[in-house]
Amino acid sequence: MTDYPSITAQLDDPDAAREEGRRKMDWARQHMPILNALREDFEADQPFADQRIGMAMHVEAKTANLVELLADGGAEVAITGCNPLSTHDDVSAALDAHENITSYAKRGVDDDEYYAAIEAVIDIEPTITVDDGMDMVAAIHEDYPELIDSIIGGAEETTTGVHRLRAMDDDGALDYPVFAVNDTPMKRLFDNVHGTGESSLASIAMTTNLSWAGKNVVVAGYGDCGRGVAKKASGQNADVIVTEVEPRRALEAHMEGYDVMPMSEAAEIGDVFLTVTGNRDVVTAEHFEQMKDGVLLANAGHFDIEVDLDALSDMAVDQYEARDGVEAYEMDDGRRLNVLAEGRLVNLAAPIALGHPVEVMDQSFGIQAVCVRELVDNPDAYDAGVHDVPDDLDKEVAEIKLEAEGVDFDSLTDTQEEYMGSWQHGT
Amino acid sequence: MTDYPSITAQLDDPDAAREEGRRKMDWARQHMPILNALREDFEADQPFADQRIGMAMHVEAKTANLVELLADGGAEVAITGCNPLSTHDDVSAALDAHENITSYAKRGVDDDEYYAAIEAVIDIEPTITVDDGMDMVAAIHEDYPELIDSIIGGAEETTTGVHRLRAMDDDGALDYPVFAVNDTPMKRLFDNVHGTGESSLASIAMTTNLSWAGKNVVVAGYGDCGRGVAKKASGQNADVIVTEVEPRRALEAHMEGYDVMPMSEAAEIGDVFLTVTGNRDVVTAEHFEQMKDGVLLANAGHFDIEVDLDALSDMAVDQYEARDGVEAYEMDDGRRLNVLAEGRLVNLAAPIALGHPVEVMDQSFGIQAVCVRELVDNPDAYDAGVHDVPDDLDKEVAEIKLEAEGVDFDSLTDTQEEYMGSWQHGT
Amino acid sequence: MTDYPSITAQLDDPDAAREEGRRKMDWARQHMPILNALREDFEADQPFADQRIGMAMHVEAKTANLVELLADGGAEVAITGCNPLSTHDDVSAALDAHENITSYAKRGVDDDEYYAAIEAVIDIEPTITVDDGMDMVAAIHEDYPELIDSIIGGAEETTTGVHRLRAMDDDGALDYPVFAVNDTPMKRLFDNVHGTGESSLASIAMTTNLSWAGKNVVVAGYGDCGRGVAKKASGQNADVIVTEVEPRRALEAHMEGYDVMPMSEAAEIGDVFLTVTGNRDVVTAEHFEQMKDGVLLANAGHFDIEVDLDALSDMAVDQYEARDGVEAYEMDDGRRLNVLAEGRLVNLAAPIALGHPVEVMDQSFGIQAVCVRELVDNPDAYDAGVHDVPDDLDKEVAEIKLEAEGVDFDSLTDTQEEYMGSWQHGT
Amino acid sequence: MTDYPSITAQLDDPDAAREEGRRKMDWARQHMPILNALREDFEADQPFADQRIGMAMHVEAKTANLVELLADGGAEVAITGCNPLSTHDDVSAALDAHENITSYAKRGVDDDEYYAAIEAVIDIEPTITVDDGMDMVAAIHEDYPELIDSIIGGAEETTTGVHRLRAMDDDGALDYPVFAVNDTPMKRLFDNVHGTGESSLASIAMTTNLSWAGKNVVVAGYGDCGRGVAKKASGQNADVIVTEVEPRRALEAHMEGYDVMPMSEAAEIGDVFLTVTGNRDVVTAEHFEQMKDGVLLANAGHFDIEVDLDALSDMAVDQYEARDGVEAYEMDDGRRLNVLAEGRLVNLAAPIALGHPVEVMDQSFGIQAVCVRELVDNPDAYDAGVHDVPDDLDKEVAEIKLEAEGVDFDSLTDTQEEYMGSWQHGT
Repeated sequence: MTDYPSITAQLDDPDAAREEGRRKMDWARQHMPILNALREDFEADQPFADQRIGMAMHVEAKTANLVELLADGGAEVAITGCNPLSTHDDVSAALDAHENITSYAKRGVDDDEYYAAIEAVIDIEPTITVDDGMDMVAAIHEDYPELIDSIIGGAEETTTGVHRLRAMDDDGALDYPVFAVNDTPMKRLFDNVHGTGESSLASIAMTTNLSWAGKNVVVAGYGDCGRGVAKKASGQNADVIVTEVEPRRALEAHMEGYDVMPMSEAAEIGDVFLTVTGNRDVVTAEHFEQMKDGVLLANAGHFDIEVDLDALSDMAVDQYEARDGVEAYEMDDGRRLNVLAEGRLVNLAAPIALGHPVEVMDQSFGIQAVCVRELVDNPDAYDAGVHDVPDDLDKEVAEIKLEAEGVDFDSLTDTQEEYMGSWQHGT
Repeated sequence: MTDYPSITAQLDDPDAAREEGRRKMDWARQHMPILNALREDFEADQPFADQRIGMAMHVEAKTANLVELLADGGAEVAITGCNPLSTHDDVSAALDAHENITSYAKRGVDDDEYYAAIEAVIDIEPTITVDDGMDMVAAIHEDYPELIDSIIGGAEETTTGVHRLRAMDDDGALDYPVFAVNDTPMKRLFDNVHGTGESSLASIAMTTNLSWAGKNVVVAGYGDCGRGVAKKASGQNADVIVTEVEPRRALEAHMEGYDVMPMSEAAEIGDVFLTVTGNRDVVTAEHFEQMKDGVLLANAGHFDIEVDLDALSDMAVDQYEARDGVEAYEMDDGRRLNVLAEGRLVNLAAPIALGHPVEVMDQSFGIQAVCVRELVDNPDAYDAGVHDVPDDLDKEVAEIKLEAEGVDFDSLTDTQEEYMGSWQHGT
Repeated sequence: MTDYPSITAQLDDPDAAREEGRRKMDWARQHMPILNALREDFEADQPFADQRIGMAMHVEAKTANLVELLADGGAEVAITGCNPLSTHDDVSAALDAHENITSYAKRGVDDDEYYAAIEAVIDIEPTITVDDGMDMVAAIHEDYPELIDSIIGGAEETTTGVHRLRAMDDDGALDYPVFAVNDTPMKRLFDNVHGTGESSLASIAMTTNLSWAGKNVVVAGYGDCGRGVAKKASGQNADVIVTEVEPRRALEAHMEGYDVMPMSEAAEIGDVFLTVTGNRDVVTAEHFEQMKDGVLLANAGHFDIEVDLDALSDMAVDQYEARDGVEAYEMDDGRRLNVLAEGRLVNLAAPIALGHPVEVMDQSFGIQAVCVRELVDNPDAYDAGVHDVPDDLDKEVAEIKLEAEGVDFDSLTDTQEEYMGSWQHGT
Repeated sequence: MTDYPSITAQLDDPDAAREEGRRKMDWARQHMPILNALREDFEADQPFADQRIGMAMHVEAKTANLVELLADGGAEVAITGCNPLSTHDDVSAALDAHENITSYAKRGVDDDEYYAAIEAVIDIEPTITVDDGMDMVAAIHEDYPELIDSIIGGAEETTTGVHRLRAMDDDGALDYPVFAVNDTPMKRLFDNVHGTGESSLASIAMTTNLSWAGKNVVVAGYGDCGRGVAKKASGQNADVIVTEVEPRRALEAHMEGYDVMPMSEAAEIGDVFLTVTGNRDVVTAEHFEQMKDGVLLANAGHFDIEVDLDALSDMAVDQYEARDGVEAYEMDDGRRLNVLAEGRLVNLAAPIALGHPVEVMDQSFGIQAVCVRELVDNPDAYDAGVHDVPDDLDKEVAEIKLEAEGVDFDSLTDTQEEYMGSWQHGT
């Protein structure tokens, strides 16, 4: 039993924090119709009445609505942050004020405190875990294996977490079922395309006070995120250039009407470079040498290794903050290359950045919520290991969203069902 | 041994036909860079030197270039049509003039002749079959099972054919390997989106002399084809309405910015209705009742059952050809509903229609060609049954296309390869 | 008094022609809501009861609905073609069958017949003229000046006609008022952008069986028409390149996201070239030398002098019809440059071309009709000379169209009217 | 002679301010290629060597580059703010440090100080005035008419200023020539469409953390700004609804593919409302009553009177800051209507807003600069009164921009010039 204090005990003025945190949560809630619809059901049905849920997630306004939803559905919830810098203490305090929730998340904690908070969460002996980066799953497997027997299962939000879980699973080391929320169509098609695309562009525009119209925007990588960024930039009248390594994606981009070329050619044409490959060293020294004065370099891929900042720093004769969130690297010929948000995710790490739009997170968290419900409803249906989210759950969330937006759609008649089942009819 | 005559023997003026057929083939060839690039290799390598290829396909200019490519690669080819109405006799004659090709395809043959022609093709004892609708595979399995032992494999072009083959395969009744060319990303992402989209819209515009700008265009079905039709219609400044039965697709359409609603609501708003569901009875009597005067009804899905023409005919007080390719159904209240191309595929069946664009078929046929080459190169690699086209072949065709279009793209460095292989680095 | 026969007397089977002509007119009428709305009014009010209207226009289905509208409004109408090749005899016959209309238009007449037909029209001693190219105005001023006193005024449809009229006007040689229908916003913003754009692209697609996706489409000239062509090509996923001579238009195209470059650079990149400059020698020998094999050359500007066909013909070692409507010019290095529709307006002169969409002509002709009504309503309001269409008439047609399409819009409140009138309020 | 102190004397730490101001100016300069190109010329030619320029403008980084450009061109410049809240003291200090510039602009001055600063500027006895809102012109005409004789002329940046100047001119009260920079195509087509469109959308996104995809975005007014907002919103996959009072604009919007309807219908559908009419009372009590919970209300038109905030405030049972820059008005039925930036220009007045993008201001200020040069070059060419910017100057700026962006374009050959001059050739 740890005695790590909850956020309330750590703040000077928890009341004020709570109020501000609640205000932030309320704003998000106004635009989270999926969670709101589920809340109505969960409050009535109390599906999580006997559950204890341990969570490690970004504790900010959007996530907080998921946390509260689970608590409103009857669960006892303990939560901490999954990144010491992403916590909003006021939101954490607002959560902690909920009778079913204890929040240990605090911004800027050191390593010891970070892990102590995780332990504090585990202390409730969770029956379900919800992770953004699998910290909770990892800590339980490593340090509290005795809890595993009583755990029904878990859900994981991110690409990174899912990859690590699959690796564990491949090694036979994952001892309870975990849903890979990250991989569902409902997340992939919306979060990546619309969420990343819109928030990256808006963050760049508001960090730089620059315009997109007529700009040569080089999008490195034409996966779902790259597709979104290219589409949204084109929708702001940029002239999009795509770089890719997979020929079919390159061809798709070409057939969409974009210019496709290697980075070594794009480097001297581009005004803005946006990396979304998921790979490293996408923009490197040879490219920096060719770039025009005043270019912007931003990353919307997971890690800050897509632009080779070490090489850039080595090449620069001077380096200074040209503007909040913009580091200028001056070359010996006077050219200035401007790196946004230190090459980290520009929609998260820029000073004014807000992360994904609320609606997009509503969708992801809606899937989280129904996955947790599914674990409770069918506790024996899933073996230990990583599980794709069942298609029906994914569809259910789409249906909730459509209904909330007042969008009606068709359903198959019996004749049509039968026809699709035995499609040979038509031949 | 049949003595069914080749097309040359059936024509009054085969020389003139040949010349005209060759002119048509030449036009297509100018715009088939993939087949042209493969031709260079195949002429040099003669990969099909000992093969006999039996084909049943639409014999028109685009397909003819695939047929000739195989023959130029050393194969002995016999071909007939896969639909008595799609054959161009002049193209058939031009093929038949090739020393390695015998063409039995003739427009407007009756059922007996149709099957006699198939038998004539089989008479060459094919080692490979290439089908558009699996007529060749079916005939061999039913009537010439003794040939199967010497058959290396086959390739199938269409959705319909692939479905039927999978059904055979499920029943354990498919006795040699067949590649499902239809299902590759290289076909699906281009043929469906760009090919169907562009050719359907152009066919409708040129059949009706009407404009898209400001029109309410109802697209029924938001699969790959529906996506393409919606996108291209929107690109002509139509106001697109989507109907769907799958909630995630409905949501995708909604998030794209389209209006999504049930057909029962769309019916009274739409100016043009385009069905691309692959299902039956998508537009029915209840919808006809609500429609505005002068609407256009067209189908770009496989069969002519998406619009319920029987019901429409029953409801109409008058019915007449309002324009070539347009049948007007007049309701008792004076409204006229205009059906294009008899509800058949509007990009194929309208009087002026030309089918898919040349470039799109170049891509499909490029895959056909490398599939045939693969069967020859690795005759023992594939068991009897339906096979997905190996990813490497699909990529190869993309690479050939990009190179032919002068589009260069990047490749992974060793460091990047290694990083992707062990992506955990980044965590 | 001429005795030139009307079309009915010149046809072998006028009844059949009439029926077919009527069918064509009916199709168009279904999609001409503006003329239909005006028809209701005109039939009731008979505004043209004492007028004789002399017309020289393209006699085809769309124009025929304007002609008939004027006749249904009480006018006695005589009409002939304004181009010997654009007349549809069947439509001419259908018009001629109307009790108030005499049509002299016949396809393929020689020069003598052409002018005899104009004289026959003038023979009715028109009180109003309606022209497409000012043939009627010119003939009256040159040969029948005695009629001018009794002429209230005229209306002119085309750019060409309006330019010539303005030249006459500048010379003090235009002796009655003529409305420059061509120049109204209602024509310019729709006809040019949507009409030219859509019909040119559809004509090219259906003449060539080629696709737009991924193509480098060079649009020469970024006026209203060029803007339309670029926009619609981009909407089909082409990669648009614009050439211009006016820097602000060049900048507009650049800021729209298009590539802007001189034709000398575009020549070697383009897959399709579409000229819409209104100038001559836009694509010339130096450009032909750089072009890729298989390019398409098409014109959507007024005259067939934008592509220098003489030079191309001189450079070609061979020249042949590659396809209906496509002339291939083969260079000595084997490259083939394909000219569509002989370099004439591709949306009119291609074999399958249909001219502007029906809806666009409905808009132009609606303005024609209200202009004629205005002349009758206010016969003394306009001096001799070219007149812009009064803004109110232009707006009236927009309102009719919106109402016909079921599109409702706002109107200013009194407070708002007053505010706009004295906008200083806000400062 | 006033003794109002320059900004330097008013600051505690002018050195630090200067440095920060310079940093801001440098960032903008990096993206102002037009001013940079002019600077090269002006530094060499010193066109303003004997001029004294009095300015009243928003003193922030972008404008500062214009001010400095004029000073670098030899002018003695005195400047003050044109709005007490828009001044950046640090930028003001950086300007004041220039040997040819005195800056009196200070943020948050009271009325007395505001006018004292204007007088201080006038104290240099300007030969040229540059205004954003005509404060300088007004003060001189009212209080220092004796200076008018030595004034060559002026330039005015805004719509508001130009309207007021035209009113003065109509009254015969404007005693020297002033260029209406605001009205040039180079400003109107870029500033309004791209500048307003992009910056409004980015400001809204970053103020709310919301997404555009699938949203019903109601754009009130389809002038240049409305067109820009609609286009950019559509480019972010919003479903755009347009309201208009001018039928031709309504029709244009309809033909673009947008839904057009009265505000009374749009009110119950919209998720976001953006007013850009330039009129008052566009969204009023009757509309508030119909709106959905959670809607956003924002204004991108000149004044904060487009949304009737008084009525809204009266209707609300509660009103609170839901988020920085967002005021929530709660209705008695629980619905919350969220007003952004107090109904003021959302791209300027939102807490995080940055005004127009740098590149757009570069274009406006480029015209300012060449207008000032024109006054010096041709001091006797312009009578007292408001003057349109000569077309050649407007084109010159377009050319400078194109060259700076590396965009080359065509020029007319002699034959083409001649053809355009006597276009009748073609008939």
